[in-house]
Amino acid sequence: MTLLVHKYGGSSVADAQRILNVARRIAGVRDTGAQVVAVVSAMGDTTDDLIKLAHSVAAEPEPRELDLLLSTGELVSCTLLAMALRGLGYDAISLSGFQAGIRTDTTYGKARIFQVDPARVQKELREGRTVVVAGFQGMTEDMDITTLGRGGSDTTAVALAAALKADRCEVYTDVEGIYTADPRVVPEARKIPEIDYDEMLELASYGAKMHPRAIELGAYYQVPIYVASSFSDAPGTLIYHGPHGPRGPGESAMENRIKVTGIAYQTNVAKITVRSVPDRPGVAAALFEPLAAAGVNVDTIVQNTGVERTTDISFTVNRTELARAVREVQALLKKLGGTEVVTDPGLASVSIVGSGMQNSPGYASRMFRILADGNINIDMITTSEIRISCIVQESQVKEAVRLLHRGFHLEQGP
Amino acid sequence: MTLLVHKYGGSSVADAQRILNVARRIAGVRDTGAQVVAVVSAMGDTTDDLIKLAHSVAAEPEPRELDLLLSTGELVSCTLLAMALRGLGYDAISLSGFQAGIRTDTTYGKARIFQVDPARVQKELREGRTVVVAGFQGMTEDMDITTLGRGGSDTTAVALAAALKADRCEVYTDVEGIYTADPRVVPEARKIPEIDYDEMLELASYGAKMHPRAIELGAYYQVPIYVASSFSDAPGTLIYHGPHGPRGPGESAMENRIKVTGIAYQTNVAKITVRSVPDRPGVAAALFEPLAAAGVNVDTIVQNTGVERTTDISFTVNRTELARAVREVQALLKKLGGTEVVTDPGLASVSIVGSGMQNSPGYASRMFRILADGNINIDMITTSEIRISCIVQESQVKEAVRLLHRGFHLEQGP
Repeated sequence: MTLLVHKYGGSSVADAQRILNVARRIAGVRDTGAQVVAVVSAMGDTTDDLIKLAHSVAAEPEPRELDLLLSTGELVSCTLLAMALRGLGYDAISLSGFQAGIRTDTTYGKARIFQVDPARVQKELREGRTVVVAGFQGMTEDMDITTLGRGGSDTTAVALAAALKADRCEVYTDVEGIYTADPRVVPEARKIPEIDYDEMLELASYGAKMHPRAIELGAYYQVPIYVASSFSDAPGTLIYHGPHGPRGPGESAMENRIKVTGIAYQTNVAKITVRSVPDRPGVAAALFEPLAAAGVNVDTIVQNTGVERTTDISFTVNRTELARAVREVQALLKKLGGTEVVTDPGLASVSIVGSGMQNSPGYASRMFRILADGNINIDMITTSEIRISCIVQESQVKEAVRLLHRGFHLEQGP
Repeated sequence: MTLLVHKYGGSSVADAQRILNVARRIAGVRDTGAQVVAVVSAMGDTTDDLIKLAHSVAAEPEPRELDLLLSTGELVSCTLLAMALRGLGYDAISLSGFQAGIRTDTTYGKARIFQVDPARVQKELREGRTVVVAGFQGMTEDMDITTLGRGGSDTTAVALAAALKADRCEVYTDVEGIYTADPRVVPEARKIPEIDYDEMLELASYGAKMHPRAIELGAYYQVPIYVASSFSDAPGTLIYHGPHGPRGPGESAMENRIKVTGIAYQTNVAKITVRSVPDRPGVAAALFEPLAAAGVNVDTIVQNTGVERTTDISFTVNRTELARAVREVQALLKKLGGTEVVTDPGLASVSIVGSGMQNSPGYASRMFRILADGNINIDMITTSEIRISCIVQESQVKEAVRLLHRGFHLEQGP
């Protein structure tokens, strides 16, 4: 029997009417004979509202308490969806994260799943029920409730799909799939019917809507992930096994694919530069170890060796973490031997992503040329196997996305 | 070290400001050196709002789903109170019902506690923390979440006090204690400084604000329960060990107590009468067993044998259960051999309560005389060891309370 794990985001379950819509959608799938496990996020802005409530009683809410508080958001939506399904005549049961066997470490606020015990979910499926699971949450070995961080419900869904050996994990959201670029920025952006995990990982890390952790997990356990809209029946995007996966060579869309799959961008990037640090071993570690210990997420890192045996080290963080990161770096400045800390809070990143690029040179230079012709200055550059990213002024990033989408002819399709 | 269990009702934690007030109150108690376990209800109307939400997606929400949904209300308030305490510099931790070791049967919506495992609470107390526990909820052996029914948070508090061998369970609410009658109905009603469990049980069952299950539990485990206002420092009412408890005979206020302790009333009473049932053994069982199986709570039962070897059986239910009860009874009518089912939905009960009454005759006749002089007709009468109740028209019940309060001179005190 086909077993599908569905995931519905906050906008898909934002009110009673939308929850009933989701219930009808699941009912339709049940009518085809498939089994469904549905993972849900909290309704609409519930999580943000709960965070505000916490801040109304305490300046710095304890992370453990905050997690137990936030976990209620998904409990509300999952029980309501189970009730709605029963109301339509389809047997259903809701399970909290811990009831669904989601076991995590104790990193409150961004816990990692270390195990999924699917016994209870399997028992309920055997009894013919649709199982509705509260996403975003789990339980530690000490029976404390944790949350998985933003995008955690995607991770819950893929982890359950892996543990249950589901045929597919279907992520329903408010967009119809993965696009070559953000359609709000590039009107001619094209929906991508299929994309492999690595490409999706780069797109997700740099702007497209899907949590990279979930994709990593999907890639590791070879769970096919289908991203589509919960508000329409338009076909979505399948994030699938690479060419070495179950797909046969004859079926692969790989060979005919154009080299650049999509353009991603990310705003709210801030850059911190530590000037004139002595160019000696261990300086980078002395800077980034304390930052990591302080929980500052560092994105791009660039080190430029200058004259006179000193170097400038630059790195980017999300703008919301800038003040904290600067405090940490200022405290380290003397020990590092640097002269000053300089910041630029108004940056963004733009990336071209495509697994086809790795064996084909010339993409980087073409990207730089397109940006230069558009009078867009490049502040920093980083590359991965299948991605080239440039840090630019935030005010220019949308124009950069449009220019690159056009320059690489992404509107034309494979 | 003194260990107190506090319980705060929904109105005491209705918003952030009130939660901070409760936190300051607990902080004050902590400053005296006492340990505190605080049990909280959901904020304000949260539970009612969640029930409405459930009914917006399903006509008849599944009880199990509803319980998991409703349990979120207390999780929100308990995490917020723990955060508020930490914000004031007092170490605190919130525990859900199941984390606090509350184990229940599987009667969703009105589960009974069968065990409290206090290990986790004790561990947190040993670490010097105030423990904030989500009231009203527990977990079954299959790890399903249950709720204890209305007033369940009182029961959680007393059960925890019993399991922890706490010195006292203090129930903070929006009234200053237990009164000789509802002060909104009888302006001269007097606060009762001390009352024993049995009297309180009768008062609580018939209108005063404290869940009878909690009092039963307190009586069984001899937990002194102190009821007071969370909005003032006025002394409240101590529900204490009876004369056979730890209180010495010299300290007892028992001997000088007037015979009637208080007047209780209850509105929303509906009466169902099954007419002309054959007067033979087993008829009552044939009626009430199916009603019990259908979950209909029957209060007063009166059977009047008439002429011609038939009898009328009357009983009362809460008005909200009338339609369901009538459906059940109609289905049984033929089997019972009755002629018709008659209902009166507009009734109320009024009771005089006092343990002193049991050895002193004449209270019943005096009660009936007071009501008769007030032109209040009595529809049904029931008595217990320490209570005499009359069912009257709902429109007359408040006048009945006032007349009885005056007639038994309750404004004068012991």
